[in-house]
Amino acid sequence: MITVLFAAKPELWPDYAGPLAKSFAEAGLEVTMADAKTPPEQVDYIIYAPNGPVQDFTPYVRTRAVLSLWAGVERIVGNASLTQPLCRMVDPGLTEGMVEWVTGQVLRAHLGLDRQIQHQDGIWRNAEVPPLARERGVSVLGLGALGSACASALAALNFRVTGWSRTPKSIAGVTCLSGDAGLDQALAEAQILVTILPNTPETENLIDSAALARMPRGAVVLNPGRGTLIDDAALLAALDSGHIAQATLDVFRTEPLPAEHPFWAHPRVTVTPHVAADTRPPSAARVIAENIRRDQGGAALLHLVDRQKGY
Amino acid sequence: MITVLFAAKPELWPDYAGPLAKSFAEAGLEVTMADAKTPPEQVDYIIYAPNGPVQDFTPYVRTRAVLSLWAGVERIVGNASLTQPLCRMVDPGLTEGMVEWVTGQVLRAHLGLDRQIQHQDGIWRNAEVPPLARERGVSVLGLGALGSACASALAALNFRVTGWSRTPKSIAGVTCLSGDAGLDQALAEAQILVTILPNTPETENLIDSAALARMPRGAVVLNPGRGTLIDDAALLAALDSGHIAQATLDVFRTEPLPAEHPFWAHPRVTVTPHVAADTRPPSAARVIAENIRRDQGGAALLHLVDRQKGY
Repeated sequence: MITVLFAAKPELWPDYAGPLAKSFAEAGLEVTMADAKTPPEQVDYIIYAPNGPVQDFTPYVRTRAVLSLWAGVERIVGNASLTQPLCRMVDPGLTEGMVEWVTGQVLRAHLGLDRQIQHQDGIWRNAEVPPLARERGVSVLGLGALGSACASALAALNFRVTGWSRTPKSIAGVTCLSGDAGLDQALAEAQILVTILPNTPETENLIDSAALARMPRGAVVLNPGRGTLIDDAALLAALDSGHIAQATLDVFRTEPLPAEHPFWAHPRVTVTPHVAADTRPPSAARVIAENIRRDQGGAALLHLVDRQKGY
Repeated sequence: MITVLFAAKPELWPDYAGPLAKSFAEAGLEVTMADAKTPPEQVDYIIYAPNGPVQDFTPYVRTRAVLSLWAGVERIVGNASLTQPLCRMVDPGLTEGMVEWVTGQVLRAHLGLDRQIQHQDGIWRNAEVPPLARERGVSVLGLGALGSACASALAALNFRVTGWSRTPKSIAGVTCLSGDAGLDQALAEAQILVTILPNTPETENLIDSAALARMPRGAVVLNPGRGTLIDDAALLAALDSGHIAQATLDVFRTEPLPAEHPFWAHPRVTVTPHVAADTRPPSAARVIAENIRRDQGGAALLHLVDRQKGY
């Protein structure tokens, strides 16, 4: 019998109870869910979110792995008490949701959908035909599981896609760059920029005033990655000057984004409330059950976090 | 020496002069463009649009083919004086533009982009996560060159795509239906409906009140095909009752759509000014040159219109 603790927000439990029971059964695992009376030293695995009840991992001496429900782990890796193996969530549902948000927002910018939606005044403006996707440069910064999937989907829609990552990558149909010179080139090609990097010391304020200045005039910024990737003041200045035409932001340094933050009121900013990629209980439960099954069978855990790199 | 008459709107000529000269040269064709003084009986090929200067084809006794710049030929096939072989425009640029408009509008409806764009009031509404594309039924009526390309692109984005056509078709990743029973099923599956059929007597008012009633409550209608496909009054009634949540229409019985038409003012309708698929001069010129080259070499013309079927 395996003991699993659900240490995400308690209000999420009703969404996960059924999918987890189903996935454990399908994986052939006999699992007891820990409750308030279960001693920490009896817990084998912890299903975890940083905004849940567990902050101190010291008492969980027998725990073989901490399985995060979140794709981003920057709020976890700084926890010194967490010495157990830590796995990120790589949920196919989450990847699909991210690809849909990114392709939808890129096509919105590409086609000028906002203008089309607004122009309901009886005036027939058919002279402005947008360029084809093959004439539109889209750069994706970050080519992990999510960024790669987005870059591939955009390339399949014929966009001229440039991808950039810290270490060299190769993706069919995508011009893949790396390093500082590669970043400058990716920014120069970015009529539409998608930032989908993890939050690490290297990526903090990566999109600062110098980076924004390298982008073509009239470019659009889409950030479904991490709030820290962008220097907020620099972005607001570039929007005010017109150098950046529009920004759609799904993630912020403080969430919920405070009502008084200038992003809410800025006419060139669309705030979306961290909905780009949401972990979906059915597919997340399958990923968790599969990892426990592997570990119980002596196989390596999937999606193990490298504490040095921070993701 | 081959004589070609450009019989589209004269103001389009500057866009086409360069691309046509380039494509004729690449195809190894020696072409003289006809001018106002060229006698009709000397014209070998006519590049044509119904809103151009030629309505009576009787004097063009030597003309070997009429090469339309338009994908739709319903305004041409009724011209009794046009007895020469008639070819539709099947422009890869036009297909790409159509796929981009359709995928962009489908993702707009799927993600609820309008709501996201409107909700810039400082309230963090992150509870409403849209379903994944794999849980969203999209039906494409019409599986010609344009409809098939759209259905494939939507399937590649994971949508649950049902396609319908008069004659049975087969497309990877798409449930293809035909016939009357197939149409009913395609409508029942259509949380989002895309109508991309030609204008023929059989398709006129295909989307009438009965068809709209078969669609699920809250469905979205996208019409980038032909204005005649939809019974305007029935659509307005279904929008008013809330059975249809939204319609985005690119084509109309009368274009430009008159300023007093109720579509312009309806809060649930987005009018786009026939921009979904625009013929692009560089790729259209290549298609025209290729067809002349084939005909001069004794090969069959491509995209020949079947006058009986009307497309």
